[in-house]
Amino acid sequence: METISKRSLLAAGLAAGVAGLPRGAFAAQPGRKLGYAILGLGYYATRIIMPRFAECEHSRLAALVSGTPEKLKTYGEQYGIPETHRYSYETFDRIIDNPDVDIVYVITPNSLHRPFTERAARAGKHVMCEKPMANTVADCEAMIAACKKAGRKLMIGYRSRFQAHNIEAIKLVRDGALGPVRTVVTDHGFTIGDPKQWRLNRALAGGGSLMDIGIYSLNAARYLTGEEPVAVNAVESTDRSDPRFGEVEDIINFQLLFPSGATANCVSAYSVNCNRYRVSGPKGWVEIDPATSYQGQAMRAQLGGPPAPREPAPQPKNQFSAQLDHLSECILTGREPIVGGDDGLKDLRVIEAIYRAAREGRTVKL
Amino acid sequence: METISKRSLLAAGLAAGVAGLPRGAFAAQPGRKLGYAILGLGYYATRIIMPRFAECEHSRLAALVSGTPEKLKTYGEQYGIPETHRYSYETFDRIIDNPDVDIVYVITPNSLHRPFTERAARAGKHVMCEKPMANTVADCEAMIAACKKAGRKLMIGYRSRFQAHNIEAIKLVRDGALGPVRTVVTDHGFTIGDPKQWRLNRALAGGGSLMDIGIYSLNAARYLTGEEPVAVNAVESTDRSDPRFGEVEDIINFQLLFPSGATANCVSAYSVNCNRYRVSGPKGWVEIDPATSYQGQAMRAQLGGPPAPREPAPQPKNQFSAQLDHLSECILTGREPIVGGDDGLKDLRVIEAIYRAAREGRTVKL
Repeated sequence: METISKRSLLAAGLAAGVAGLPRGAFAAQPGRKLGYAILGLGYYATRIIMPRFAECEHSRLAALVSGTPEKLKTYGEQYGIPETHRYSYETFDRIIDNPDVDIVYVITPNSLHRPFTERAARAGKHVMCEKPMANTVADCEAMIAACKKAGRKLMIGYRSRFQAHNIEAIKLVRDGALGPVRTVVTDHGFTIGDPKQWRLNRALAGGGSLMDIGIYSLNAARYLTGEEPVAVNAVESTDRSDPRFGEVEDIINFQLLFPSGATANCVSAYSVNCNRYRVSGPKGWVEIDPATSYQGQAMRAQLGGPPAPREPAPQPKNQFSAQLDHLSECILTGREPIVGGDDGLKDLRVIEAIYRAAREGRTVKL
Repeated sequence: METISKRSLLAAGLAAGVAGLPRGAFAAQPGRKLGYAILGLGYYATRIIMPRFAECEHSRLAALVSGTPEKLKTYGEQYGIPETHRYSYETFDRIIDNPDVDIVYVITPNSLHRPFTERAARAGKHVMCEKPMANTVADCEAMIAACKKAGRKLMIGYRSRFQAHNIEAIKLVRDGALGPVRTVVTDHGFTIGDPKQWRLNRALAGGGSLMDIGIYSLNAARYLTGEEPVAVNAVESTDRSDPRFGEVEDIINFQLLFPSGATANCVSAYSVNCNRYRVSGPKGWVEIDPATSYQGQAMRAQLGGPPAPREPAPQPKNQFSAQLDHLSECILTGREPIVGGDDGLKDLRVIEAIYRAAREGRTVKL
């Protein structure tokens, strides 16, 4: 899918050259809004992310990258992005010469996350990469190495970490309101449609429901407990005669055991609709349903009294704008993102263990 | 704990003798209310079950069996049970001579279910036995054999099968409202207290949370799908330094795979409070929370539109009275209970597989 042109190789060489420069040489000055290039102009990029720069304090939409000229024209005009700041995948590496772009946000099919992250880093840009970070642990490690070599930051698009209800749930756990976490029950799935979409193509998606939606169950179990699992069970259920599931799994439910003794039961599915979690300890529980959706989160908690709705502390920004600004702020202040490449890598380590546990019919230790 | 007296051995011989009589020789005539002997006068028997004979059509409280003379006196007087119909565990086998008693309802610690069921059957009585049916598959098989030999019916106290919301959920599934079941997510647990109670004594309870409360998750997964699992995963998490859990497990979460491809993620816990399930298919889901409690069930469903509360079709009786009357009706009409010894045995088969899966760290096939 990707061809590396002479120009991009040249750009890669230049990028490698600048890796030796002092950190922040390409970073914006405090006060300036950092410029994002959105790479991949699909539904999520154009309908969900791009409109949310309007609420950003530290981020602005500065460039577009797409394989479809019509999309570059349409969204370029809509968002006032000059032609000089519109790139095809062939011309993308020239972005090294564009000082208006600080960050490349990679929103492509999963298998392209690694090569585009590597190219962005070689072009001296910081990288925001959608989840799943990549298809394999090896890919994640290569992406982390590429950004490290370029002296650039890498963040994964785990937007729920910036969402008010999720922040409240994490806070309740950390504050000890539930006592020690004993169980997380989290279900993520949707009934997938068109069998021809890239999410059902193994080469592009790297897997099925787990890579796309089940990863929310995994990530939530990790951020709610604040721990990394040490043992994994899994069971897969896929109707291979269904034209949607010739290449990738439908259901792959998994169980996690954490060092503290906390446990998680997780659903990952392409044949049912669900989006929720409940985290419980001896003193009570908190649940969000829907939990990791674009909007509409609703929370209930049982803390001493009977179960009751709970409104989280308000957050200054919506989850999307807050996510975009978080990376900008990290760049401006020299901090590391709370969901860096290491967090994406940790999810992929568990994902590989989940697939292995289901395939081999055994508990996989981590 | 149990001593078999000469008298009980004699009774056993007599019971064996009557096994050859025509079916129904001891059964009541249609129209008459069948007489129950309640064996074991603990909280569940005295506070939950005994008051519910008042709403029964075909059942009445006829006798009491207890190891505590004060309880026999107190409840005997309260319910107008004559002294001739009050038995100690030593005198229990004389119940063979009491024509007012058709059914013995065994509500003792788990390990006593088998011996008392066998003694009741030898006394020519039908048996209602609380869940879990027994501690092992072998015990269940012996109980089934004992009742079969005596020509008497055996039913397990799976009261949720007679509860309106649960009946509605099963009906929605069977009617195809959800499409084929793909996932059942069900959590049952409570924060157990006094470390000295019999539920935390392995010899009496046979195990920990799974035997007592997690069995509701298992039984629900089975009655919602209408299938028997073919593969089981499990993970245990028990703090053995906690004085409650020196002998039995705290958390043992399990996963089930059914022949149709339906899956279940189940929580079983003695350190968190939970009592719920959601069953999902491509067309929607239905959930009950609390699901299998004594009262207070609440249902939501997502069937085409957004999730919404749902009131089940009303049932003529509460779950307890309906359960009691079901066995009476089966006896009066010659039918088999919908939750007979075979159903209790099936749960124990899976329970043994769950313990094995957790212990051996592998998927156990059934």
